[in-house]
Amino acid sequence: MRILSGIRPTGKVHIGHYVGVFENWVRLQNEGHDTFYFVADWHALTTHYEDTSELRQNTFELVKTMMAVGLEKSTLFVQSAIKQHAELFLLFAMVTPLSWLERVPTYKEMRQQVTNRDLSNAGFLMYPVLQAADILIYKADGVPVGEDQVYHIELTREIARRFNYIFKKEVFPEPKELLSKVPKLLGTDGRKMSKSYGNTIPLITTEQELSKMIMPMVTDTNRKRRSDPGNPEVCPVWDYHKAFGTADNPEEKQWVYEGCTQAKIGCIDCKRLLLKNMLGKLQPIWDRYNSISDDEVKAKMEEGNEKARQVAQRTMNEVREAVQIMF
Amino acid sequence: MRILSGIRPTGKVHIGHYVGVFENWVRLQNEGHDTFYFVADWHALTTHYEDTSELRQNTFELVKTMMAVGLEKSTLFVQSAIKQHAELFLLFAMVTPLSWLERVPTYKEMRQQVTNRDLSNAGFLMYPVLQAADILIYKADGVPVGEDQVYHIELTREIARRFNYIFKKEVFPEPKELLSKVPKLLGTDGRKMSKSYGNTIPLITTEQELSKMIMPMVTDTNRKRRSDPGNPEVCPVWDYHKAFGTADNPEEKQWVYEGCTQAKIGCIDCKRLLLKNMLGKLQPIWDRYNSISDDEVKAKMEEGNEKARQVAQRTMNEVREAVQIMF
Ligand code: SF4
Ligand code: SF4
Repeated sequence: MRILSGIRPTGKVHIGHYVGVFENWVRLQNEGHDTFYFVADWHALTTHYEDTSELRQNTFELVKTMMAVGLEKSTLFVQSAIKQHAELFLLFAMVTPLSWLERVPTYKEMRQQVTNRDLSNAGFLMYPVLQAADILIYKADGVPVGEDQVYHIELTREIARRFNYIFKKEVFPEPKELLSKVPKLLGTDGRKMSKSYGNTIPLITTEQELSKMIMPMVTDTNRKRRSDPGNPEVCPVWDYHKAFGTADNPEEKQWVYEGCTQAKIGCIDCKRLLLKNMLGKLQPIWDRYNSISDDEVKAKMEEGNEKARQVAQRTMNEVREAVQIMF
Repeated sequence: MRILSGIRPTGKVHIGHYVGVFENWVRLQNEGHDTFYFVADWHALTTHYEDTSELRQNTFELVKTMMAVGLEKSTLFVQSAIKQHAELFLLFAMVTPLSWLERVPTYKEMRQQVTNRDLSNAGFLMYPVLQAADILIYKADGVPVGEDQVYHIELTREIARRFNYIFKKEVFPEPKELLSKVPKLLGTDGRKMSKSYGNTIPLITTEQELSKMIMPMVTDTNRKRRSDPGNPEVCPVWDYHKAFGTADNPEEKQWVYEGCTQAKIGCIDCKRLLLKNMLGKLQPIWDRYNSISDDEVKAKMEEGNEKARQVAQRTMNEVREAVQIMF
């Protein structure tokens, strides 16, 4: 099965990306699928066109991070390197009814809710068309997405069907969404993780820095003193435990649950265990990250771009034949 | 001055294209400008995506016709061969406010008036963005257009300004529209020239065929008999005379005017003169057309594509540098 997914280079990669996205990508890769993962740098412009000063750096870091988390067997590439996406985007725009785009739930919602960023550009409305091009140009069978992206994949299928119908050729298969439960991690202050709150934990950091962020983390707010019993179910730290394996270890799980609800352990003890489990997963990633040279990133990226470009070009040859356009 | 203009391959080239478009293009070329003329085959899809069976043939014919009318010194190319247009289109979409597109006069108008064709696709709304990319990628100084396209060029300037402003670099100059008076030619039945009325005169034809279309042409409808005086000002045939030089020849002009208004000549005599003057301009074009081989068209097209691609690529290098996108 060919799997395709992308990530936008809009800022530093944080721990939420790891448990929400990369872990899933690695799993799919290791299950033996033909995995294509890309940095969606054109997509980043739909919402972040105003300050692109870190775009290249973020793009590069993302590729390096994908290598570090263990995606080396996947085809890793950069969207803007594959110009065929833009060409297919253009052709899809010609056959996609405006009404389909205007009723995308996230479109309406974001235009209403997001006030600190300009979403009034055509690019933001056209976003799902570009996404359809990204997916269909590789004839992906499956696309790992979160709940909020399900409608986009449905739209991608509709565009595939409409293209095939209009040009009387089965160029595009219909991809399926691969819904994965994304562990929700809150920021260190117990609010939603957000760059603007300064409460995110970067994926690539050091033991010392990680400790500085985990130890003062907000816990069950009812547990004011060491002697107060707490409740892991309302504690953001427990969400981290679940994401980093504590919940899968019966002994550790019991230790936290009993210790917390019966005030046998302090939150500091609890966080020390979390830190240990996080380091177990993250230290190897940091070690890999630090051992990868810029040249290796470049080489991996170029190899991925080349492979992606060949697949995209093959699809575009079929597309041009179906559309009967000259070039 | 660099001049850029395009024509859509949506059907057979007719005589209206010659007097309205090509004559003007030839004049600009012969005035020594650096002229780039292209077949806008992607644009044709915005309104004609449903039947593309003749798209390639029409595209090829257009290049051949441009050669025949005397545009050999210009850079002749095909839009779909220059993928950079699609890339710039994508980037422009990211910075173009939707509201600018929704208020394009021809957009509203056509969505309301055109009923025999589906204009509800995103591509139709995005049309002016693609047009801006077509123009700005060549940093054109002047764009020959008709009245109805003036707003599009204004929009192109606005997009250029906005791009330069957002990305803090003067990448794009602001092109000017070159308004030309387009002689209005009606169809052979006196109605608006339209493929669906079957009243158009193809540019490339033969003397015999041309005669078959000109001789029965509708004239001043008040001139029912040979003995009735007529009025050239309300006669479609006189518009043709003006377009083909009769009006510029004092003797011929007087002959028609006097002859018509005083019933000294018949409409048949008048049309014979028209035919003579049309042939004077068209016969050399037909001769050239018939002497051009397919290989020569291909060679000219490839040469033009290559030259256009180089210019477009240079601009895109500047664009990528300004946007700070990786590729
Ligand atoms: S002991 Fe652990 S789970 Fe309980 S409140 Fe403290 S940090 Fe949260
Ligand atoms: S004589 Fe010529 S201008 Fe007069 S009505 Fe006849 S065709 Fe028209």
